[in-house]
Amino acid sequence: MSSRNPILDPKARENLPGEDYSSAEVALANRNSGIHLEVMRHDITPIGMHYLLSHFDIPYVENAQDWSLALTGLVELPVSVTLEQLSALPRVERTVTLECAGNGRSLMQPRWPSMPWTCEAVGTARWGGARLSDVIELAKPDDTATELVFCGADSGVDGGDYHTFKRSLTLAQIAATDVMLAWEINGQPLPPQHGFPLRLIVPGWFGMASVKWLTEICFTDTPFQGRQQVGSYQYRASADDPGVPVTELRVKSLMIPPGIPDWYTRDRLLAAGTVELFGRAWAGAGARISLVEVAIEAGPEDSPGQWLDTQGAKDATDPDGLIWQPAILSEPVDDYAWTGWRLDWNAKPGAYRLRCRATDEHGNRQPVVAAWDKGGFGNNSVQCVSVWVEQELPVPA
Amino acid sequence: MSSRNPILDPKARENLPGEDYSSAEVALANRNSGIHLEVMRHDITPIGMHYLLSHFDIPYVENAQDWSLALTGLVELPVSVTLEQLSALPRVERTVTLECAGNGRSLMQPRWPSMPWTCEAVGTARWGGARLSDVIELAKPDDTATELVFCGADSGVDGGDYHTFKRSLTLAQIAATDVMLAWEINGQPLPPQHGFPLRLIVPGWFGMASVKWLTEICFTDTPFQGRQQVGSYQYRASADDPGVPVTELRVKSLMIPPGIPDWYTRDRLLAAGTVELFGRAWAGAGARISLVEVAIEAGPEDSPGQWLDTQGAKDATDPDGLIWQPAILSEPVDDYAWTGWRLDWNAKPGAYRLRCRATDEHGNRQPVVAAWDKGGFGNNSVQCVSVWVEQELPVPA
Repeated sequence: MSSRNPILDPKARENLPGEDYSSAEVALANRNSGIHLEVMRHDITPIGMHYLLSHFDIPYVENAQDWSLALTGLVELPVSVTLEQLSALPRVERTVTLECAGNGRSLMQPRWPSMPWTCEAVGTARWGGARLSDVIELAKPDDTATELVFCGADSGVDGGDYHTFKRSLTLAQIAATDVMLAWEINGQPLPPQHGFPLRLIVPGWFGMASVKWLTEICFTDTPFQGRQQVGSYQYRASADDPGVPVTELRVKSLMIPPGIPDWYTRDRLLAAGTVELFGRAWAGAGARISLVEVAIEAGPEDSPGQWLDTQGAKDATDPDGLIWQPAILSEPVDDYAWTGWRLDWNAKPGAYRLRCRATDEHGNRQPVVAAWDKGGFGNNSVQCVSVWVEQELPVPA
Repeated sequence: MSSRNPILDPKARENLPGEDYSSAEVALANRNSGIHLEVMRHDITPIGMHYLLSHFDIPYVENAQDWSLALTGLVELPVSVTLEQLSALPRVERTVTLECAGNGRSLMQPRWPSMPWTCEAVGTARWGGARLSDVIELAKPDDTATELVFCGADSGVDGGDYHTFKRSLTLAQIAATDVMLAWEINGQPLPPQHGFPLRLIVPGWFGMASVKWLTEICFTDTPFQGRQQVGSYQYRASADDPGVPVTELRVKSLMIPPGIPDWYTRDRLLAAGTVELFGRAWAGAGARISLVEVAIEAGPEDSPGQWLDTQGAKDATDPDGLIWQPAILSEPVDDYAWTGWRLDWNAKPGAYRLRCRATDEHGNRQPVVAAWDKGGFGNNSVQCVSVWVEQELPVPA
């Protein structure tokens, strides 16, 4: 065992760097949950491992039979549709990778005070339900309708503004993707936290579009100006920037950190030899992943311990001379689902930073460091995993 | 709308208090997840809302048929038992409230650098499997065996110490509670994060005793001295305190924060009138809850906004003159499951702090402020929920 290995140093926790996170951010991190990266081995993310972001409180719905969806606004006649009526429509099942638009927020400096995701706000589930287009037909909308406003059952305050969670999509946006109304996840009824009994699923978009606890779809001819549409979920370079709407996913990849973790720092320790690096990659609007590459950067000989920084914040630099090696891709299980990738690495003792980056079929490629965003949205910077390789590891006690 | 109401102040987030949390603590909070308190309405916590604390990585188990449990040590003959063999034993189902021993850690000052739970590390599930006592019979232990060591499939480093997660129980402790081996939760196979395919469930104890991904039970006549038994999970008043083992749950209650939340601060806003306060209470070792009381403290007239501090850290004082009113209790659904409680409150405009405290059948009562613990264990301090009552609320936008 190398004496310079800080993972196996019993005193390591005495000299941890402090950073200025508020107790409100920690409470949000306790409340909202991300995938454990090692669970990306599964094509379909188990319930409870799929990322979850709840803006307000999860509504308590005792009985799905009492639930109905109101179709209102520019329609022939406003109607309420029960779940039973929806389930009589042609059934559709779709495996979809969803990611929170704020994923990676805490790696952007300075950091907008909100949910401090590192990189774990992603998941892939198999959603069951009906096509939104079939529900639109039920509503018999007026020819003047151009946009649909989707209302959840959840309300609360954000920035002093008391509102119900609502998002809109134009009919053109709906025609361009395969939007569905879902009442099942991974073959089961939705659990409360994923929108029971009914939610929207907008494949290829960031998660805020997939409105949970759906109570109403309002057909309109006016661009929706609600808080969650134009106040939040806008890319902004500064406070007075009018913003560009957050819509489709950005091309991105993640790696399962190899080896074994330190409980507290999540630093990684592994034995020299062949190490399989494995991860997932996805892109916006159902685009295919055409390339995933891996860069393995060896640490300095003199003070390799300085390289252990699992949170990645300090690694958000673009070092010169990274050498990118192509990984082997697997077939995605569905058009809107992530792609698996793997690469064998012949690891030798020392400290390393491992990075992966994806490119989609349109040539969009992850940046090593993404542009800063005021709200912390759309961070598809290359993930950086710090590891320490020993010649061999002892048998654990 | 009162102009002194900071929840509806659009500038509120500009003056948030900072606190010194490390990025490692935030990454742990992102990784581990707690119950959304409002989901305590459900007797049984839905999968994905039950708290989850993973020390190391979640093992990837493709096929439960390849899994076996080794029974070793002071037994007639070491054997491996398959899940199929276990499922031939008499089936048992038990609804159990589990809580992380570190729940409430971040409310203790100073705070041990570890998973920074506020109060959400609790859940109640229906576990299905076999009695441990029936498995012990299968093993035919030697008369000299006094203790069983339970080994998980997960390994990692903590404080420089590389080890497999292991915990022990003495035969006397096993005889005193209804320990089971579980392969189902809420009627389904365990998901990976809850111990697939097999785990221990120790009702009435803190969660660390319920070893996940169980691979081996070793019968021994020597007190187990592993890291997770004697290094961690000890109540300690100082670093040189030898410690008292963390074992059974401490009496505790939680309230669902009433009204509607502010997204970021989780401060609560509600309309005057009758408000149902609802929550849960539980105790150690299957003791019944005999009393839950609620104290409603009205804020100062001159600066009620100072009272909004949802995280509760600053509320960890024991004010004089709290008036405790008894709540109405419901029957627990099982011996080791939490009890529901409720109380109607006639809320008038102003700022308030709401507290609840439980007492068990043996007279154990939650302290308003629990004793400090070096590792942040066993914090059963009374929860404090800050709310702001308006005469009426507008219709949300």
